[in-house]
Amino acid sequence: MLKKIYHLGYAVHDITAATRFYEEHFGARVGEPEEVEEQGIVATMFAVGESKIELLKPTRPDSPVGKFLEKRGEGFHHVAFQVDDLEAALKELKESGVDLIDEEPRVGAGGTRMAFVHPRDAHGVLTELVELPKDRER
Amino acid sequence: MLKKIYHLGYAVHDITAATRFYEEHFGARVGEPEEVEEQGIVATMFAVGESKIELLKPTRPDSPVGKFLEKRGEGFHHVAFQVDDLEAALKELKESGVDLIDEEPRVGAGGTRMAFVHPRDAHGVLTELVELPKDRER
Repeated sequence: MLKKIYHLGYAVHDITAATRFYEEHFGARVGEPEEVEEQGIVATMFAVGESKIELLKPTRPDSPVGKFLEKRGEGFHHVAFQVDDLEAALKELKESGVDLIDEEPRVGAGGTRMAFVHPRDAHGVLTELVELPKDRER
Repeated sequence: MLKKIYHLGYAVHDITAATRFYEEHFGARVGEPEEVEEQGIVATMFAVGESKIELLKPTRPDSPVGKFLEKRGEGFHHVAFQVDDLEAALKELKESGVDLIDEEPRVGAGGTRMAFVHPRDAHGVLTELVELPKDRER
């Protein structure tokens, strides 16, 4: 069901400092920051092989990433796996009793459809499933 | 410098339960558990695209993964990026002032060479760099 790691989300306090770290030391080509208002974050990303690293900074302290930072500090926030058919995946997971944060797909960045599995069932890892638009299969 | 995500390491209390979760719900084909005595872990893994997920269970509470589990509970433990030339990467990182856990490569599973960058500098993410043996470039 899981095609690839689509991205890793890292929660950071300072997106400029984190960007500089990956650019200077790892040769990353980090994109421009973009605000995703619904999630209360500014995000920027860079590619590593077929995957991406997303640097996430909260725009308000009560957003999920803001609360995460306050509780745990900077670090890994979530992993996103690409799937072919998100609705089918969610249906299967729900029927087999897996706890979902999103029972229905939500619209994510770049026209993707996405949903989160609850970290309680996924052994502590906040796990996102992503389906790409049919015209952008990568 | 970073070729791909080589693996993600997840710390778990119960490797059998975590294996079952990914097999049953995500169709993962999880390998046999292997003990890595030096690191005080039992590890098993499954492929996702060009990357792998490693499930890590401590064999003793005072191992790094054991201490992590006690402090933070189950969840994401580290990311490993594949690089072409680990010694050159470590030299460059050290010269530019990045804090390394391992200043020299260590021998990892399957004849790989690996070293950890300190999470303090890597914005809270425990980051491993891996170089594969020349005869196993994947």
